[in-house]
Amino acid sequence: MVLATLPSSARPIGVFDSGVGGLTVLRALAAALPHEQYLYLGDTARLPYGTKSPGTVVRYALQCADELVERGIKCLVIACNTASAAALPAIRDRHPELPVVGVVEPGAEAACAVSRGGRIAVLATEGTVRGGAYQQAIARRRPEARVTAVACSLFVALAEEGWTDGAVAEAAAQRYLAALCADPATAPDSLVLGCTHFPVLRAVIARVAGSEVAIVDSAETTAQATAAGLATRGLVRVGGGAAEFRFLGTDSAERFARVGSRFLGREIRADEVELVDL
Amino acid sequence: MVLATLPSSARPIGVFDSGVGGLTVLRALAAALPHEQYLYLGDTARLPYGTKSPGTVVRYALQCADELVERGIKCLVIACNTASAAALPAIRDRHPELPVVGVVEPGAEAACAVSRGGRIAVLATEGTVRGGAYQQAIARRRPEARVTAVACSLFVALAEEGWTDGAVAEAAAQRYLAALCADPATAPDSLVLGCTHFPVLRAVIARVAGSEVAIVDSAETTAQATAAGLATRGLVRVGGGAAEFRFLGTDSAERFARVGSRFLGREIRADEVELVDL
Repeated sequence: MVLATLPSSARPIGVFDSGVGGLTVLRALAAALPHEQYLYLGDTARLPYGTKSPGTVVRYALQCADELVERGIKCLVIACNTASAAALPAIRDRHPELPVVGVVEPGAEAACAVSRGGRIAVLATEGTVRGGAYQQAIARRRPEARVTAVACSLFVALAEEGWTDGAVAEAAAQRYLAALCADPATAPDSLVLGCTHFPVLRAVIARVAGSEVAIVDSAETTAQATAAGLATRGLVRVGGGAAEFRFLGTDSAERFARVGSRFLGREIRADEVELVDL
Repeated sequence: MVLATLPSSARPIGVFDSGVGGLTVLRALAAALPHEQYLYLGDTARLPYGTKSPGTVVRYALQCADELVERGIKCLVIACNTASAAALPAIRDRHPELPVVGVVEPGAEAACAVSRGGRIAVLATEGTVRGGAYQQAIARRRPEARVTAVACSLFVALAEEGWTDGAVAEAAAQRYLAALCADPATAPDSLVLGCTHFPVLRAVIARVAGSEVAIVDSAETTAQATAAGLATRGLVRVGGGAAEFRFLGTDSAERFARVGSRFLGREIRADEVELVDL
């Protein structure tokens, strides 16, 4: 393999997600580490992971990780909350030499740092909520915290449809959050966007939650954790130019490019997306 | 195989869908053919099909059909618009001896029968809209018809979430339909529910579309087409008791039962769902 002859720091950073939502993490990574090469894999044929059982998510996530490892990445970022919650230990077991960063621990870390009263709400997919990984990660850091987790499945569809503002997004946010925020027993002081699709809905979520509620986007803290991990290991790329992106998908390059552009915040062309069969 | 020794009419009717939305078709089948045994397969690990490429949908649909054929069904109903549109010919080629009914042709037939002015709107998934199967099936019957197809991806998420009425469903229906119905150039006189998820949203869709617009649910006409096909071949079960159901899923029996109960209109228990690996 050609990449094996490259010095380690020159190798790409691998990122995977169930689809294109993880491009919000890629965007944050490129801001924090602007001279790297990125290899992003979206398992678009099998999304969403959020409604699947843990066993299935682990199986799919291992296949994604294997594909990226074979292509010579220097570290792996799991840019999917569901896969981070279910499959991080299995991926570390399979690839013990590889630095692996998930989005749950950095998100929990950030929530614990910004929450003044320890009343934290996690908005996530069904799978992430049921798995309890955020609840546990927060409890390890702040055992006194009162954590509420809310499965917001419709936010995924809204983000994919591009309906990130307007009456439908507003009504959905109201339905998920109004009761939670109105009840003094559950009203959070901070709110974790525990799904990579949700940052594009940040404005409407913040408006419904109220201005006194801090919004935590795990994309940014994950990027910081990745940068710190690479720096510790001497793996930050030096002397590189601007960030470079390569995209892999498991279905429909056209849809990957069209929907993905919204999440990455820059245009992706269909011919930039290579299809792979996992 | 034990089933091979049964007379043909005593064998089960096979039904498959990408998930649990096809249970609306199963419900209509059981009403039209109340003494049959039904074997329903929901490919819940790989849903949705509606955003996948035609090649992937054909591959998945053939695996579903093969699984049911191996279990000795007497006919096959493709209770998924996306799979009917993309994979019906491939399934008939693979299993030439098996009667196969899709939902697109019966839906188009019904729309052409009820539309007075030939102005027909098809509400469907992205994949079904892009494939053009409804548009073609309607044009074959009424070449003068003016057909508009609208991809309503969010309706799938709303139906799965159980938000079939209320502010979010209303706002989504408004966003998809208001402009279409307000413009005299496109205003339909009939509207096809071209996705098996959509019948549970029928009331809100009808309210937004207006009382003069006829709503066509392909589940009912598909059940009638299936009944007619079985009668022609002498395959209707005689002397049977009430309808019997067996359920197969490819992921999470618990979610299949919980969400599926809404679509079937009767309770499904998780222990009634057998998991299969396709």
